[in-house]
Amino acid sequence: MKSMSVQCALGLFAVALSGAALAADVKPADQIEIRQGGYTFMSWNMGKIKANLEGDFDAKQVAAAANVIAAIANSGMGALYGPGTDKDIGDVHTNVKPEFFQKMPEVGKLAGNFVAAADQLAKVAATGDAGAVKTAFGDVGKSCKACHDQFRAKD
Amino acid sequence: MKSMSVQCALGLFAVALSGAALAADVKPADQIEIRQGGYTFMSWNMGKIKANLEGDFDAKQVAAAANVIAAIANSGMGALYGPGTDKDIGDVHTNVKPEFFQKMPEVGKLAGNFVAAADQLAKVAATGDAGAVKTAFGDVGKSCKACHDQFRAKD
Repeated sequence: MKSMSVQCALGLFAVALSGAALAADVKPADQIEIRQGGYTFMSWNMGKIKANLEGDFDAKQVAAAANVIAAIANSGMGALYGPGTDKDIGDVHTNVKPEFFQKMPEVGKLAGNFVAAADQLAKVAATGDAGAVKTAFGDVGKSCKACHDQFRAKD
Repeated sequence: MKSMSVQCALGLFAVALSGAALAADVKPADQIEIRQGGYTFMSWNMGKIKANLEGDFDAKQVAAAANVIAAIANSGMGALYGPGTDKDIGDVHTNVKPEFFQKMPEVGKLAGNFVAAADQLAKVAATGDAGAVKTAFGDVGKSCKACHDQFRAKD
């Protein structure tokens, strides 16, 4: 089962990378800025869900936020890690470690975990069940952290 | 009917703004960067749909891209135009014109048109109908431009 799920994860990242041909027209510096834009926007939505779990739970807002995270997770961001995006370009800074580009099987596994967790969060958020959202939200957070710990350099 | 649809649009933007209380903890400079991140990410996905319409049509990629645009459109971005975000903050630059903050009924109408067009694009993209996607994509583009023409300053 473990090897099965790793294969699934690799498959998911392969899907994510399949848009690479289309992204070939996107300049490396733009790829960095677009992926950072996506993470920034996801982070805002993670923050909204956290605030809802800690305060009044607005199911509609939580579902909208979870939809953003799932949609971005499924957008094929792998295509935004093209050649030349492994280091700063002019004043465009990236925090990704060089190892990211050398450990694709591991990256694929982490990406697959993240997509699965984001899909699950969107699924339970649609039901308005705050308890289920709390669990799924925690799993998304863990899947983010797993990649950050390995592949994100300190600011 | 016209006044009805304007009311609807205002309602939609009011919903978008209802997250403002939660966003109160987000610093103005961060609000600007988050909203720009959202637009940057939507723009990448608009570009992917355009490329699909002009080349091989990958229905799965188009649907994923349309889902991103719709999810971000429905995320309550109105909350990212809080007090103090009407001008540059340090080295965080904004292209929004001051009039944006003075013409909320007009902004609400444009925002409502954009959300409706984005929802329609996601709906038809899910069917894989390239012709319907082309029409809906054009409508989203028009709804973006309508706001940019009025409220976005030149770079």
